[in-house]
Amino acid sequence: MPASERAQRRRSPDPAQLRAWRAYIETAQVVRSTIGSQLLADSGLSNGDYAVLLALSEAPGHRLRSTPLARAIHWERSRLSHHLGRMERRELISREGSATDNRGAEIVLTPSGTTAFRRATVPHLRLVQELFVDALSAEQLAALEDASRALGRHLQERLDGTAGESG
Amino acid sequence: MPASERAQRRRSPDPAQLRAWRAYIETAQVVRSTIGSQLLADSGLSNGDYAVLLALSEAPGHRLRSTPLARAIHWERSRLSHHLGRMERRELISREGSATDNRGAEIVLTPSGTTAFRRATVPHLRLVQELFVDALSAEQLAALEDASRALGRHLQERLDGTAGESG
Repeated sequence: MPASERAQRRRSPDPAQLRAWRAYIETAQVVRSTIGSQLLADSGLSNGDYAVLLALSEAPGHRLRSTPLARAIHWERSRLSHHLGRMERRELISREGSATDNRGAEIVLTPSGTTAFRRATVPHLRLVQELFVDALSAEQLAALEDASRALGRHLQERLDGTAGESG
Repeated sequence: MPASERAQRRRSPDPAQLRAWRAYIETAQVVRSTIGSQLLADSGLSNGDYAVLLALSEAPGHRLRSTPLARAIHWERSRLSHHLGRMERRELISREGSATDNRGAEIVLTPSGTTAFRRATVPHLRLVQELFVDALSAEQLAALEDASRALGRHLQERLDGTAGESG
């Protein structure tokens, strides 16, 4: 192993960086689970259900193939497929085969899925206001968004780089 | 419903606040799942396994009762109980009954749990460095920690307030 690689492999966060990491990842987890529990209590939808309904509601024609849907909500396709089966049985979505295209079925928002999403959205957004927006000054909110976007870009570059290496 | 309550209920994030919210919560989810996938590939431990082992490794005597353990990792007790059963079968932890105390068993880190945790920690921290610390300037890291702590405090105050109202 070259010395530069060895140095790279030794690098790890210092105690202050590790405290920042834990504050970030643990708080995000608590925020997500608190909002998710309330969403389920208010609307009978899980965080995953809501993410799928949100992505479909924003898609042209309220329909997406499974690959772009998985990408939009950042899930593995196998996990998404099982989840969609359960949502289809609850009539929140339907899966429509396409005779002219062998890339597989499209996931379509149903009328009852649209209704469930709309009903869930009002209390959900109120909770986002109360738990998230009200917790932060305008400066903190802007800084949090800036840091989140920097993290997201860095992660995407790394994933693209990894894909390039293995391809 | 009084007018003030109606106004309260109407409050929801404006489009810019909603963009900040989605950048925050979606990025945190991607960071968590990316690090979790790599942890599993490197070490055979899930994010949940690692959180339990971390909490026990930091506890006096490497042991905790289930209530403080659940609080430390921010899980519901029922979810934790199922998870601990699986970790016990893998000999990462053990559950020891206490004859002098009817508050139930203590969860104890086993020697093989200690080994698994130590082996996982080096690659895990390297990835935290690469995906998180390297993505951010010192100012961004400090701002992210500050905003995370403000969010965490606000959430805790709200949970304490809710507990007070229902008690």
